[in-house]
Amino acid sequence: DPNLKVFTLGSNKALAQEIVDHIGIEMGKCSVSRFSDGEVQINIEESIRGCDVYVIQSTSAPVNEHLMEVLIMVDALKRASAKTINVVMPYYGYARQDRKARAREPITSKLVANLLETAGATRVILLDLHAPQIQGFFDIQVDHLQGVPILTEYFKQKNLEDIVVVSPDHGGVTRARKMADRLKAPIAIIDKRRPRPNVAEIMNIVGNIEGKTAILIDDIIDTAGTITLAANALVEHGAKEVYACCTHPVLSGPAMERIMNSKIKELVVTNTIALPEEKKIPKIRELSVAPLISEAIIRVHEEQSVSTLFD
Amino acid sequence: DPNLKVFTLGSNKALAQEIVDHIGIEMGKCSVSRFSDGEVQINIEESIRGCDVYVIQSTSAPVNEHLMEVLIMVDALKRASAKTINVVMPYYGYARQDRKARAREPITSKLVANLLETAGATRVILLDLHAPQIQGFFDIQVDHLQGVPILTEYFKQKNLEDIVVVSPDHGGVTRARKMADRLKAPIAIIDKRRPRPNVAEIMNIVGNIEGKTAILIDDIIDTAGTITLAANALVEHGAKEVYACCTHPVLSGPAMERIMNSKIKELVVTNTIALPEEKKIPKIRELSVAPLISEAIIRVHEEQSVSTLFD
Ligand SMILES: Nc1ncnc2c1ncn2[C@@H]1O[C@H](COP(=O)(O)O)[C@@H](O)[C@H]1O
Ligand SMILES: Nc1ncnc2c1ncn2[C@@H]1O[C@H](COP(=O)(O)O)[C@@H](O)[C@H]1O
Repeated sequence: DPNLKVFTLGSNKALAQEIVDHIGIEMGKCSVSRFSDGEVQINIEESIRGCDVYVIQSTSAPVNEHLMEVLIMVDALKRASAKTINVVMPYYGYARQDRKARAREPITSKLVANLLETAGATRVILLDLHAPQIQGFFDIQVDHLQGVPILTEYFKQKNLEDIVVVSPDHGGVTRARKMADRLKAPIAIIDKRRPRPNVAEIMNIVGNIEGKTAILIDDIIDTAGTITLAANALVEHGAKEVYACCTHPVLSGPAMERIMNSKIKELVVTNTIALPEEKKIPKIRELSVAPLISEAIIRVHEEQSVSTLFD
Repeated sequence: DPNLKVFTLGSNKALAQEIVDHIGIEMGKCSVSRFSDGEVQINIEESIRGCDVYVIQSTSAPVNEHLMEVLIMVDALKRASAKTINVVMPYYGYARQDRKARAREPITSKLVANLLETAGATRVILLDLHAPQIQGFFDIQVDHLQGVPILTEYFKQKNLEDIVVVSPDHGGVTRARKMADRLKAPIAIIDKRRPRPNVAEIMNIVGNIEGKTAILIDDIIDTAGTITLAANALVEHGAKEVYACCTHPVLSGPAMERIMNSKIKELVVTNTIALPEEKKIPKIRELSVAPLISEAIIRVHEEQSVSTLFD
């Protein structure tokens, strides 16, 4: 369909290329660069008048650069008379600033939703949001895809025996439950608590992990403090081996060092955030969300439901 | 007035301090930092409920960082029940992307105006906009201050003799005319044209500059190509000496080297964009816009007109 156009910006070129290859179309022609003073310069190099345009961009680090790129691109597409402007954001930055935890905090997740609408986005396609409530921050259509089945499938094919799926905190139990159901495995929960202020946290494990292969699952691994402490605690409490997985490998600050020095046997992630060369180590296994996103783009474009994508 | 609060973000702390000192109040307490993954973290550390808040931030380089800081700050102020949120932007980044010069270009200046409104700004205070049309991009109140009188005053006090004010291009003639009137001096214009494509530009000088002290004036000096070529052409055509001045010293890429190697005797700029240490050289003289902005803040707060600020 000549009215379907896919463009990529700076964050995730390899994934975007996989997506257009999967769909079987050419990548939309545009250049994204910087003026001498650092301002974003975007040139759309083909007509998109009347087209359904999909722009692929994760707001991973550098988050503010990537966000401004997509806002400016959407502005240019709007002024060039695109019929629909669909922003595909495999990783939605600022997702953790989704509520006022303290007085006078911003709610940057909501701000970002408003900015995308203001620029002219008509739909967003997102993947494993840190909080599903973020869908409600948008007044435009939102498709919320799930990456967990991709992670699950990988472990299924490994044919591991005597598995337990472990949530590293209370907030992730629903996610762990989903994976456990698909793997027909039990779950366990790391129950951290601080008996008194300024006293070290106690790591309690709720559920039976002794002698089992534990799979830790989270949505985002950022500095990797939580996940590596959890992995080490699992081994200390008698787990046979520990895998870890997440959809979004932010991996900032001390993350790489912590992962390398941890008891994690393998860390399985997806390519919603492109791993730079120095983070491509044998211990980290990267799975692609390209088939999932391509399928979603095709279904949205053909006005079919995406909700059945994993039944 | 306890209801008047001024905050500063990352771009221009020294200028903001000068401004609050001038007004005679304390700087509003807030911290602006980054999470480990580079996301902006803002904490407003005092109540601003019911207050008139002024946020000082230039969207100078790194422009996308500085822009997101101010958007997130405005979001936080809005949610913390500020009465009015006045964004003071001494330098308005993306001002040169103010029209579609070619097909499918964004109009980022307009996008930025929309983003500021969406975040919750109720008024903006701007200074020497690259195009005065940008005022019309806002639906909220805009105060547009002029920096040219500050530059003019400096040259007046130098008591230079036999001055000519020179515009480096056709677009800047109005600005040169204003300065010339105040200095009771004539004007000249650098008239560049390219006789045929791929042939070097010819620099023609319209007006009499022979034996005179020339003052080149522009709003923005970015890579300094135009201004240094103009200065050298003026000397070649017989000017006695050449000063240059601008409101906004962007000074990116080869700018510093070009300025140092040019025939410019002194470059006079304002602090709408903070000069980093390595750009503070004897040849560059920095004037402060703090008295101007302080006065504007006081007048806006007392609901007086700012249009008479320079009569
Ligand atoms: N980029 C970030 N890195 C680390 N912490 C963050 C980030 N953004 C927000 N937060 C904090 O993380 C908390 C929310 O995390 P969670 O409880 O996992 O939803 C809030 O208290 C935020 O202040
Ligand atoms: N940050 C920038 N640096 C250099 N050129 C720019 C920048 N932003 C926009 N432009 C270009 O500058 C031109 C407008 O400049 P002007 O004619 O001086 O108003 C447009 O053609 C823009 O493409």
